Amino acid sequence: MISVKEALQLVEQNAIYGETISVSTAEALGCILAVPAVAIINMPPFPQSAMDGYAVRISETSGNYVLKGEVKAGDEHSYDLKKGEAVRIFTGASVPDTADAVIMQEKVTRKNDSEITLEENPKLNQNIRPLGEQFSVGQEIIGKGTLLNPAALSYLVSAGITSVKVYRKPKVAIVITGNELIDINSPYQQGKIYESNSILLRSELNQLRIDEVTIIRIGDDYQTTEDTLREALNAYDFVLVSGGISVGDYDFVGKALTTIGTEEIFYKIKQKPGKPLYFGKHEGTFVFGLPGNPASSLTCFYMYVTPLLKRFIGSSNIHLERKQLPIAHAYTVKGIRAQFLKALVRDDKVSVMDQQSSAMIASFIQANSYIFLPEYSENLTENESVEVILL
Amino acid sequence: MISVKEALQLVEQNAIYGETISVSTAEALGCILAVPAVAIINMPPFPQSAMDGYAVRISETSGNYVLKGEVKAGDEHSYDLKKGEAVRIFTGASVPDTADAVIMQEKVTRKNDSEITLEENPKLNQNIRPLGEQFSVGQEIIGKGTLLNPAALSYLVSAGITSVKVYRKPKVAIVITGNELIDINSPYQQGKIYESNSILLRSELNQLRIDEVTIIRIGDDYQTTEDTLREALNAYDFVLVSGGISVGDYDFVGKALTTIGTEEIFYKIKQKPGKPLYFGKHEGTFVFGLPGNPASSLTCFYMYVTPLLKRFIGSSNIHLERKQLPIAHAYTVKGIRAQFLKALVRDDKVSVMDQQSSAMIASFIQANSYIFLPEYSENLTENESVEVILL
Repeated sequence: MISVKEALQLVEQNAIYGETISVSTAEALGCILAVPAVAIINMPPFPQSAMDGYAVRISETSGNYVLKGEVKAGDEHSYDLKKGEAVRIFTGASVPDTADAVIMQEKVTRKNDSEITLEENPKLNQNIRPLGEQFSVGQEIIGKGTLLNPAALSYLVSAGITSVKVYRKPKVAIVITGNELIDINSPYQQGKIYESNSILLRSELNQLRIDEVTIIRIGDDYQTTEDTLREALNAYDFVLVSGGISVGDYDFVGKALTTIGTEEIFYKIKQKPGKPLYFGKHEGTFVFGLPGNPASSLTCFYMYVTPLLKRFIGSSNIHLERKQLPIAHAYTVKGIRAQFLKALVRDDKVSVMDQQSSAMIASFIQANSYIFLPEYSENLTENESVEVILL
Repeated sequence: MISVKEALQLVEQNAIYGETISVSTAEALGCILAVPAVAIINMPPFPQSAMDGYAVRISETSGNYVLKGEVKAGDEHSYDLKKGEAVRIFTGASVPDTADAVIMQEKVTRKNDSEITLEENPKLNQNIRPLGEQFSVGQEIIGKGTLLNPAALSYLVSAGITSVKVYRKPKVAIVITGNELIDINSPYQQGKIYESNSILLRSELNQLRIDEVTIIRIGDDYQTTEDTLREALNAYDFVLVSGGISVGDYDFVGKALTTIGTEEIFYKIKQKPGKPLYFGKHEGTFVFGLPGNPASSLTCFYMYVTPLLKRFIGSSNIHLERKQLPIAHAYTVKGIRAQFLKALVRDDKVSVMDQQSSAMIASFIQANSYIFLPEYSENLTENESVEVILL
C-alpha cells in the first residue's frame, strides 16, 4: 500500500504522449497541437481597408479628389491612382498600391459622381491594415502544445491552414464486472442493481473529448475475465476495469491481470475513498482496476486516470489545480487514511458536502472540488486553511 | 445606440426557455433537467452488504456461528437464519432479512466449512446499507434545472430512470456574408480572405453542446440576402449573421431584416469592439447581425448571444461571471466607448493581452477573460481594481 503522493508520482512517471496524427482543421476542436502551425498566406493578404470610405493618393495641394471608381470587399482591381485621385472603398477591401490613406466616409463630402472633398488632412497610411500585419507566410502562428479552441481554429483557417498535426485520442475500453449488475433497459430483478459506472466513466471520457469508448460487461467468472482482459489489453490504449479488484473471493481481476503478465505499477493506496485501486501496464496499454463503488471509482478516475489521459492527448499540465482555501465550517476527521472529501467552493470558501460514502454518487452532481486531507489529519476548525483540488 | 447595460438588459428580458423533450438518459450528457427526476427503485434495492465478510443473526450467548451458505453479489437467495447462524457474504450482496449484522472477514476466524468464530461482538445493523438508504421509490432525486453531468447520469441510471425531460437544444443557422470570403479548401485568390467566422461560431456552439448547426454562405447580393434570411428565420431557432450589418453601401442585412418584418430589439451598442451589433426577433426566432471582424464577432457572441442560448437550453444563470481583480500593469485607455479588453487572469491578477484590434483573433487563443471598462473610463494604474468578466 502506497501513499497518495507516491501514487501521483508513479502516474506522472508513466505518463506518455500519444502518437501524432494529421486532422482537418475543421475537425480539430479540443485537440492539442503537436507541431507548430505555420501560415500559408499573409494576413491581411493585401493592404486592407479598415473602414468604409475613400482610398486616396494624397495630394499636398488640395482637399479635392477625383473619384476614379470603387473597390468592394473581395474585388480584384488594378487602379493606378495619381496624386489627388481617390476610389470609393469598403471595409476589408484591397487598397490600391498607389493609395496611401483611407479616409472614413463620415469625414468626406461627396460633391458629385466624380469628385469628393476631404474635411481634414489625410495622414499617411491612415486606416490601412498593412499586408502581413498579423502574420506573414511561413510564420509560426500557433505554438506546439496549444489547445485548439474556437479562436485557434478560426485563426488557423484565416492563415490558410487546412490540416494540423495533433496528438491522437486514445481508444478506451471500459470493462464492467459483477454478477449483481443489470442493464438499465432490463426489468428490475431481486438482488441486482442497475449498472451505472459505464455511463459515469464513458461520460467523463466524452467530457475530455474522448469518444472512442467501448463498454464490455462480464459476469464474475474467472475465465471470461481473463479472456476479456487479454483481448482488451491488446486492442485499446486504456482499459478501465470497474469492480472485481478487491480481495473478495469472487474478485478475479487481479489474478487475471497477473496471469496475462500485466506489470503492476501499484495496487492499493492509503486513501479514502478508492483504497483498492490497481494501476498497471501491458505492452503500452494502461490498465486501471477501479473500485466498483461509483464515488470511489470517480475519485480514482479524476486523480489517477485523468492525468494519463490528458498527457496522452498532449497536455503538459496534467494534474488537477490545487489551492489553499478557508473551510466554511468545523469538520471532524474520521480515520487516519488520506481523504478526498467532495466539496463545494463558493465565495472563496470551501464546504464539505453531505453524503461522502463511497457508494454515493449524488454529491458529485454539485461538487466542484475536493478537500484533500493528508494522512493523520486532525479535526478542522472553521476558517482553517485546507488544500482544495479543483474539478 | 444604447449602452452595454441596456443591451444586456434587453437580452435578459427576451431570453426564453426552449421547449422540453424526452431523451434517453444515455444521451442526456450536458442537458438541463426540465422536470425533477423521480426514482423508480429503492437504492439500495435491498439491505446490502458493505463488506466482504459474514452476515450473522446475532447470538447473545456465543461467538461461534454455524455457516449455512453463501451469498454473492447478484445472488437471489432465501436464507432464513436463526440466532447463531451465519452466511458468507460479499460486498454489494443482498443481506438475508433475518441477518442483523455483517462482520468483516478480517474479524472472523473460519474454523471449518460449517463453523466460524467472531473475534469481537457484533453491533446491530453493522456494515449493512439499509434498503432505500440513498433514496426510495417515488423520491425526487435530482431537481429541475440541474445540469446533467456524468455523476448525475450515473445517479439516474442507478435509480432505474431510462429517460428524462430536458430542455431541447436550439437549431442554429450561421449565415456568412461577404464577397471577399473564400472557402478554406479553395486555392487563394487575390483580394479575398479565407472565411473563418463559421468555424469560430460553430465551434463555440459545439462547446455549448449545440450540434445542430447549419452554415450558409452568401455573397453581397441584396435579393439573395433577403431570400436566405427569410428562409433561415422560418427554419431555425437562432440565426447568426456574420457581416453585412454596418452602414457600408454593400451591407444588405439590415435592410433585408426590415423588409422581412423582423422586430429590431437593438442595433448598435456604445462599445468596443462590436459596435454595429444587431439583435432582433422574428416569430420566435432570434437573429443577431454580428460584425464581420472575428474578434468583434466573438465578443458579441460571448456577451449577448451566449446568454440567450444558455437560457434556451435551460440555464437560470445565463450571464458570464464577473469579479473585481487588480490589474497587473498600468493601462492607457483609448476612446470613450465601453470596452471589452481581452485579458488573462493569473495568480489573482489580470493583464490586458496584446492585439486588441477587432480584426485580430489571436489573443482569444490564450485569453480567459475580459477587462470591462465602462464608458469614459480613465487610465488605469498598476494594481487598480478592475471589473473582470470570466470566459
